[in-house]
Amino acid sequence: MKYFALLPAAALFSVTAAPAANPLTPSQILAAAPAGDWADVPAENLLVMDLAGGGRVAIELAPDFAPVHIANIRTLTRAAWFDGTSINRVQDNYVTQWGDATERKQLSIGTVAKPPAEYERPVAGTGFAALPYRDAYAPQVGHAKGWPAASDGKAAWLTHCYGMVGVGRNLAPDTGTGAELYTVIGHAPRHLDRNIAVVGRVVEGIEKLSALPRGTEALGVYARPDQRLPIGSIKLASDMPAAERPAFQVLRQGSPSFTAWVKARANRQDDFFILPAGAADICNLQAPVRRKP
Amino acid sequence: MKYFALLPAAALFSVTAAPAANPLTPSQILAAAPAGDWADVPAENLLVMDLAGGGRVAIELAPDFAPVHIANIRTLTRAAWFDGTSINRVQDNYVTQWGDATERKQLSIGTVAKPPAEYERPVAGTGFAALPYRDAYAPQVGHAKGWPAASDGKAAWLTHCYGMVGVGRNLAPDTGTGAELYTVIGHAPRHLDRNIAVVGRVVEGIEKLSALPRGTEALGVYARPDQRLPIGSIKLASDMPAAERPAFQVLRQGSPSFTAWVKARANRQDDFFILPAGAADICNLQAPVRRKP
Repeated sequence: MKYFALLPAAALFSVTAAPAANPLTPSQILAAAPAGDWADVPAENLLVMDLAGGGRVAIELAPDFAPVHIANIRTLTRAAWFDGTSINRVQDNYVTQWGDATERKQLSIGTVAKPPAEYERPVAGTGFAALPYRDAYAPQVGHAKGWPAASDGKAAWLTHCYGMVGVGRNLAPDTGTGAELYTVIGHAPRHLDRNIAVVGRVVEGIEKLSALPRGTEALGVYARPDQRLPIGSIKLASDMPAAERPAFQVLRQGSPSFTAWVKARANRQDDFFILPAGAADICNLQAPVRRKP
Repeated sequence: MKYFALLPAAALFSVTAAPAANPLTPSQILAAAPAGDWADVPAENLLVMDLAGGGRVAIELAPDFAPVHIANIRTLTRAAWFDGTSINRVQDNYVTQWGDATERKQLSIGTVAKPPAEYERPVAGTGFAALPYRDAYAPQVGHAKGWPAASDGKAAWLTHCYGMVGVGRNLAPDTGTGAELYTVIGHAPRHLDRNIAVVGRVVEGIEKLSALPRGTEALGVYARPDQRLPIGSIKLASDMPAAERPAFQVLRQGSPSFTAWVKARANRQDDFFILPAGAADICNLQAPVRRKP
């Protein structure tokens, strides 16, 4: 079986030992990254979704970008509001969406009914670092607080990459409450950028959402209620007993390993590649995440 | 249930009746496209894959871009070589791959053992029309003979977008025979452009390949042979009885409807959108395909 894009069989070697003629692959850079180049995901920013039929999805929240929506999500989560709701929509090459399909479940439990349009924020304070690569949708793309982001020099916003999580809404000025969420399971629908509140990203278990049967109704909605996939519970990791919490780390934006990893991803040098691109799309440069060792 | 990116409830109206303040949505443009704006997919360019467990996938071949690999694929198909092989690898946000997992099946049935590296071709003769949008990977992106493509002004090549089909290979100078194929099921891995032979695109049934369980071995390979999904048969539509052939049409590159559709996709104006992007990624502008009416 041919694997294309196969990593070379060469054994891992450390950064210092690497001869210039054999630059490290992205995987080798991650394997060699020192502990200090990884940053913990705070437990209060980690949602843990357990599907009723088995399977766990972990989502990191981005409170620096959509604080009111995320406050709503935390409130709903702490009230066990999502428990017993379901995955209702799976549209191929687009999104998987979950929440209360009926929109009848009581929301007035301390949530903000009409959050502001948290579609962008001032770039100042985000640590936005632009990449030197072109982008179809924005003047600049890069990373901000570890997130894939774009900027026009004044504002910054999160980009709709694979695995990013956003807030379902109806027509403007509705911004959604956070009671219906979706994640991207296809090519980045970047036309949604700045039109919707992006609240986080799936850091583990995306395949529990991306490999589901596609809905056959318009927009991938499941045709029958019994096709919906029940959600057992969604919890904040910080509310789980310490021993039960999953814990993750993100490669620290701006660390030597992060910088080397971005460069290596954009200039693939392993034996498989004939012609490295010399650049990459921001959605192919999402910060690596790992289980905390 | 909130649908975001929902099409507006407004009824379809014809192009001529559309008031300037209400430009047509992409869907409305397709619905209004005259028959002459659609081009038939030739039956000799259409692969029909029937999975043993049910489900059909239709693939359009691109002989203008990888003629030797495609001649191999046609030869293997006509010899029923793929029948009884399987889907062996499903890697999340990357590819689904099929063929002879053992690499032991006899290939010397008239195929070219070592095809040339058909990774690009002269741009002349492709009808390449550049879009005015930036791209991370190539100086220009646009469409060539209806395919998503890129160019540096001299050469043109097909881009690794969602649903595009390529030829698995080992390390260079191996280019693969065409006996192992994959399709993209995630964000476009454009770093593979010009490193691999792209031979076509899935025009129907991508969800039969994208919603499969992910393989748990490295690179998404299924851990056990019994997890592989058997392929009943792959046939060329031109070898099927006329009454049984599926038939497709692609929106004709350069037609008024195509031009309007691209513009509308890049400038979403329906009631959902607050801020149209004014541009789009080439992989969000793949030519629409429909069943031939």
